[in-house]
Order: sequence, then structure tokens, then C-alpha cells
Amino acid sequence: MNERSLLSIDDLGPGDIGEVVELARAFEEVLQRPIPKVPALRGRTVANVFFEDSTRTRLSFEIAAKRLSADTVNFTASGSSLSKGESLFDTIRTLHAMGVDLFVVRHVAPGAARRVAGWVDVPVVNAGDGAHEHPTQGLLDLVTVHRRRGGVEGLRCVMVGDIAHSRVARSTIGAFAMMGMQVSVCAPETLLPMGIDEWPVEVADDLDSAFAKADVVYMLRMQKERIFDDPVLPSLREYVARYGLTAERARRLPDDVVIMHPGPMNRGVEIAPEATEHPGAAIEEQVRNGVTVRMAVLYLALGGNS
Amino acid sequence: MNERSLLSIDDLGPGDIGEVVELARAFEEVLQRPIPKVPALRGRTVANVFFEDSTRTRLSFEIAAKRLSADTVNFTASGSSLSKGESLFDTIRTLHAMGVDLFVVRHVAPGAARRVAGWVDVPVVNAGDGAHEHPTQGLLDLVTVHRRRGGVEGLRCVMVGDIAHSRVARSTIGAFAMMGMQVSVCAPETLLPMGIDEWPVEVADDLDSAFAKADVVYMLRMQKERIFDDPVLPSLREYVARYGLTAERARRLPDDVVIMHPGPMNRGVEIAPEATEHPGAAIEEQVRNGVTVRMAVLYLALGGNS
Amino acid sequence: MNERSLLSIDDLGPGDIGEVVELARAFEEVLQRPIPKVPALRGRTVANVFFEDSTRTRLSFEIAAKRLSADTVNFTASGSSLSKGESLFDTIRTLHAMGVDLFVVRHVAPGAARRVAGWVDVPVVNAGDGAHEHPTQGLLDLVTVHRRRGGVEGLRCVMVGDIAHSRVARSTIGAFAMMGMQVSVCAPETLLPMGIDEWPVEVADDLDSAFAKADVVYMLRMQKERIFDDPVLPSLREYVARYGLTAERARRLPDDVVIMHPGPMNRGVEIAPEATEHPGAAIEEQVRNGVTVRMAVLYLALGGNS
Repeated sequence: MNERSLLSIDDLGPGDIGEVVELARAFEEVLQRPIPKVPALRGRTVANVFFEDSTRTRLSFEIAAKRLSADTVNFTASGSSLSKGESLFDTIRTLHAMGVDLFVVRHVAPGAARRVAGWVDVPVVNAGDGAHEHPTQGLLDLVTVHRRRGGVEGLRCVMVGDIAHSRVARSTIGAFAMMGMQVSVCAPETLLPMGIDEWPVEVADDLDSAFAKADVVYMLRMQKERIFDDPVLPSLREYVARYGLTAERARRLPDDVVIMHPGPMNRGVEIAPEATEHPGAAIEEQVRNGVTVRMAVLYLALGGNS
Repeated sequence: MNERSLLSIDDLGPGDIGEVVELARAFEEVLQRPIPKVPALRGRTVANVFFEDSTRTRLSFEIAAKRLSADTVNFTASGSSLSKGESLFDTIRTLHAMGVDLFVVRHVAPGAARRVAGWVDVPVVNAGDGAHEHPTQGLLDLVTVHRRRGGVEGLRCVMVGDIAHSRVARSTIGAFAMMGMQVSVCAPETLLPMGIDEWPVEVADDLDSAFAKADVVYMLRMQKERIFDDPVLPSLREYVARYGLTAERARRLPDDVVIMHPGPMNRGVEIAPEATEHPGAAIEEQVRNGVTVRMAVLYLALGGNS
Repeated sequence: MNERSLLSIDDLGPGDIGEVVELARAFEEVLQRPIPKVPALRGRTVANVFFEDSTRTRLSFEIAAKRLSADTVNFTASGSSLSKGESLFDTIRTLHAMGVDLFVVRHVAPGAARRVAGWVDVPVVNAGDGAHEHPTQGLLDLVTVHRRRGGVEGLRCVMVGDIAHSRVARSTIGAFAMMGMQVSVCAPETLLPMGIDEWPVEVADDLDSAFAKADVVYMLRMQKERIFDDPVLPSLREYVARYGLTAERARRLPDDVVIMHPGPMNRGVEIAPEATEHPGAAIEEQVRNGVTVRMAVLYLALGGNS
């Protein structure tokens, strides 16, 4: 396995994360130039290998690679076409033999990116493996808080929603906690993961008292089906009342709070349209920082041309 | 809304159209060079956002962007995948936050491109919004007539077929009329749009007498289903007899007529295979001019690097 | 038809093939450079036109084109979308009018690439036309043997499996025989093509005695359905016993044999997992050589910039 792979936030120490944040901030300047492009990775080939559809994440990596002058190729497969064709192993080994220099991998199965990393000698970046991890999301969330507040240490974040099924939760909580933020989670019991006691978080029972102390409010995407399946939560209306960032709750948040969401949003479910207009809303900034963070991750993984 | 957007032919005045035509003609020379490429848009990112399949139009824009050294990214979505995912608004705002410099938008809904243009501060080019408009088609048609005849003013065009459901009709008639051409339309009554009286056209009852005076013959694509659904037109054979550019009609057209079709053609329906061999047939030239016109539109919208 | 098209191995003479092999070997050095890229085809546009899904072949051509600094565009269509849309002829003529400089064509119909070559004045490369030909496969197989053994003349190859339905068989046997290799085929009678007597091969009845004299062992992909449909072969187990490169057979092969497979492999059917670990296994090398061979083919077809 290539030691420059990024498979999990836990593979990084605070020093590594600091390096990514600093480099991502430096790339912001590049993107302001008339020609927002550097030749750092000219001639390198980045393969986006997506076994699960995610146009948003794929385009973010693709744009980041192009800003560094890398060539990109896309391999997308539904589970079915893969099942009747070749195995994941053969797909990866074939692309590797074609000279791919770095794999960006998205797959429904937890651990998939790590398995891929064991098959090749080039870096692998995990772009989401089931409900497990999505480390560049954690890094871009960190950069977003850093830009808004000038630093992250000691800040208090409340993360709300479906913690149990969210790779964003795992990676972002990992990144926030490692850099000294205090994270609380607030969710119906059925949406808290088993073993939450082992996570570096507190569990908050009441959303409003948690919000009252929060520097960062992080709303997760809620799948509506889960609400209807939940015997404890009789209705969407009740979910919104207890766990939604409603217009009224948004009004009570101070201007310097940071309101975050990994997208795509269910407006009117976990977040009210009015909340996205709050001065603290940083949701599009997260997307913007996704490009610079991925530039930094690709650059560090591939070394760049001197 | 960015004032450099191109949403409708009506947004342009004769001076603007003249500028596009002149620049498109200048780009013809670039495409003759050993390396048919200019660095004008290096580092700019053009997103082709297609909510309706049109490989032909997408590739034309993609090739035009590459000839100008821009980077391109493609976002294609069927209605279904969008409906279960994020809204059009969120898709556009997300791509915008990633740093896209220009949106090329295709969508089934009339007015979609204009709505998109209201959400971003970068230029939007309408690549077809339902039966409404397809302005680069109008411009490439104009360039085609201009190249063939050395000018357009005063020329007489007969457009034949499904005017009512055609975005090509709206944009091409708009461009032709604005530059001083005289346009007649000829179609079964059910395929004429409501309010045709307001259009800058005459309605011709008889195809053959209209053809006798035409400098330009423009055949629209006919969807066969519409013929069968039409209570007035009992058969395909009758449609062809009354409204088709048959081999016989083509033989009667002079050599310097310009025969046009937006493609893809239904050979044997609206146009006979023999007609595409007529010296006046300019159908592939339209495709060729589509690339230079789109280069001109992208260049003017993005300003280019000095 | 452009005389630089590559439609069939039989279009080439030994001198042409030698030129491709030599150039492909020279490109190996380019791929070792820090920036593995040459400007030879800058500004040229290569279109991958795939009417049959083959991500593996498409990506190999796409990476080869990018290494030569060409622009690439992809057109992929299932049979169904084509049938309701435009004809193959119109698709090709449209792309040609857009300024495509070379077509890479994959299609289910034997002879499709040759038909395409008749419609355009630029080179066409056949990337597989039904069960007919796949000439770059033949060339990359030849390069693979050449690299492993320092030459090919007089070497003995045994090709095993579904000869009748394999375009790989036709092209690779053609390339091997033309360069002086001796080829035997070994397969159940129902998987031998009609007219095998006309091919430049011997038919071997017994796999093990053929293997005993082989320098190259070439296993074809076996479609399991064919085994079950075959009244003579009662079971998969019997097929493997008689025609599979089992672990035991692999153990008996000398270290300097070359074991080949066009991929994707059915592990446990035509080839045992252990056989892919044999020192002679060259299956990933075939993929690697696919890129340099396609670079050579594109370069020779397009002439390159001086």
C-alpha cells in the first residue's frame, strides 16, 4: 500500500491535517489568478473510479485535478454491470497497468478503498466507502470552519441528524476532534450508531440548549424513508420540530455561528430555506473549499513536479 | 444575471449578431492551422449541464471549448435521477461554487436556461430549452447562409415542417428575420404554433410555389408520431407528398439554393436521400459552422485572455 | 477511405507491423519520464465512438491519446438509443463535420469499422467489430511476446478456447502468423470456426501435448453460457478439466513460457487463479503494452507534428 493514500481521517495526525489545511488555503490564491491553474501535476493521470453514483464528488475531484494540470479519466459502473463483467480487483489492476498514477475511489462497501489500496503501489484517495468514511469531506469541513473563524481549536460543534448511517459524520467528527474542537451529536436514538460511547463526542439530548452554546451547527442530510420507518418518530413534522434547523431556530443563532451541511439538502426537512440565508450559512463555501482541499490532497499524494 | 449570457436570439441586436458571425468566420482560419487551437480560454472551466440527452450538441460545445483551450466538465442527468436527488437550483449552485466559469444548459423546460442565469453571476448559454429556443442553432444557420451566399440581407427562406414544436424554428427565424431575411413557413395547420401571426413570417400554403422563389430551403425534423396522430394528415405518404423535400422537388431547385436541416434527418420523411446530394445541400456545413459559432459565443461570453 | 486506417491485421504487412512494434517499444521510454507525455498530437481530436460498451478498451485509447497530447471526445451509445435516433452514418458524418481527426470505432456488427472508414477522409481505427477483428489487440499481444522473448519468429503459440466467437483470436493469430510464429488452436469442436482449415493454424486435439511444446500459452475468455449450451460438453467441470489452464497444468509450464489472456478473466474457468501467479504470466503486461501500441497506432495514423 502506498503510504500517501488517504483512506481514513484516522490515518492522519494533527500535523498532516495542518499541512492539508495550509496548502488548501494557499491554493485559494491560485484560483484567484486570471488563469487559475498550475502545472504541478502535468502528465499525471488521475482515475475517478466510481462504483456508486456521485456526480458532485466526482466533479469536485475532476476540477481539482484539472487545476493542477493532471489528466483525468472516469470509470463509472453500476453494481450490475460490474457483476456480469470483471471483478473490482481486475478493474483496478487493469487501470493500474494502463499507468494510472492515483485512484479516487467511491464504493458502497465499507473498506473498499482500503482494499483497493492493497492492490496497487500508487496512492488511493477514499471518496466515500458506504457509511464508513469520506475523509476529504472532513478536511473541507475543517477548512471551512478555519476560514470563517480564523482557527478551530476549542470551538464547539453540534452535529444533528442521521449519525449512524453517515460517512460524513465519521470523517468530519474525526477531523474536528483531532484538531481540538468539541463535538456534540444530537439525534433520535435510532439514528445514533452502536458504540457511540467510544466516539470523541458528547450526546446532547435537547437541540435548543446544544445550539445555545454552539460555534458550529452541522446538519446532516436526512433520508425521509428513515423517518417513516422509525417507530419512535411518528411523523416528518415531529422530526422537524425536534431535530430540524427551522427558520425560528436559525433566527436565534448568532451571526458568527457557522452553519454547515454536506449537501444535497432536503430543504424543509433537516434545514429550512430561511436558514440557508443566515449570515453564518457556509454551505456553498464548503463546496468551494472542497476543490482546494482536493487539490491539496492530490498534490501531496503525487508529490507534484518541482 | 450576467449580461454576457446567451439565452434567446431576441437578447441580441443586429450588431451583436454581426459580431458573432464575423468572429465565427475568423475562427475558420484557426481550424485550418496545423494545430487548430488557440490559448484564449486557458484555465477557464466550461460546464455542459445537460438535463436532456443531446450528444450532438454537447460534443459541438465540448470541441469548441477545447479549441479555445478551456477545460470542460460534463454533467448529464435524466429527469429521474434528478428528481430523487437534488434540485436544479442546488446542482447549479454547487457547480458554481466549484468555480465553473460558464454554463451551457440544456433542459426540457422552456425558460430553464433563463432561470439558471438568475442563480449565478457567470454567463449561461442556452443549448435548448424545450420547444422554446436554441440560439446557437440560429447563429450557425445564419453563418451557413452567409458563407454560401456572401451575405444574407433580402434572401428568401422557406421553412417547412413542425414549426410549433421546434426550438430551431424560433431561434433560426429570429436570427434570419433580424438580419433582414424574408421567412415563409409551410406546414400542416396543426403544426403551426398558436400566435403565428405575431411571428416575423408569412405563411405559405403551397410548398412548390414557395420553393420557386426560395434562396434558402429549411427542412425541420419531423417526428413520425405526430404524423400518425394528426387527424388531418391520413398518412406518412401524404405528408411526404405535400411537405417533403422529395427527390423530384430537389431536382427543380437551382444550384445556388441553400438546403438546410438541423439534424438528425429522417431520410425519406421530411427529406429524400437524393436531396442531401444536391449541390445546395449545406447540412454538414451547418454542423461544421456549429463549432466556430460556439467558439465565438464562448469567447465573447468569457472575454478571453488578452 | 484514408489509407492510414487500421481496420484489420491483414491490412498490414510484416514491415508495417515491425514499425508499430518498434515505435511502441520506443514509447515505453516516454512513459518512464517524470512527465510521461509528448506534444506529438497537440490540437488533434480523437473520437472514441463506442456502440458497444467496453470501458477497458476505451480508457486504453483515451490514455494513449492524452499521452500524445491529443484532445479526446467520447461518444457511447447503446443499440436502442441509436435505433430511435440517428443512423450510424449520420453520427459519423456529424462528428466528422465537427472536425474529428481520427475515429476509434467499436461496434457489434462485423465490418462496421470498415464501413465507417468509407464515409470519412480521416483515419479509422477498428477497436472491435463483433466477432470479426480487434487489430490493436493483435499488435499488443505481439509486443508482449516480443518484450518477453526478445523476438517472435519461430515461437510456438497454443491458443485455447472459444476461437469461433473471438475477435481476439482472428487478430492475434493474424499478427502472430504474419511475424513467423507457429500457432495451434485447441478447443471443443463446437467452438472452432467454420473454415478453420483456411486459417494459418494447426488444430491440436490434446491440450497437454500441445502445452508441452509451447512457448506461448494464450487462453481466451470463455462465456459460461456457451459451455452450458454445448451438447458435447456436459459440464463446466469437464470443460475446465479438458481445456482449462488449471493450477496443475500451470505448474508443469516452464518459467520462460508466456501466459496470456485478453481479459477480463473468468478465474476458475479458463484460467486458475494460481496460473496468474506463474512467472510467465504476462496478462497485466498485455494491458500496459496496449497503451504504447495504441500510442504508436494513433501516432502513425495522424502523422504527428514535426
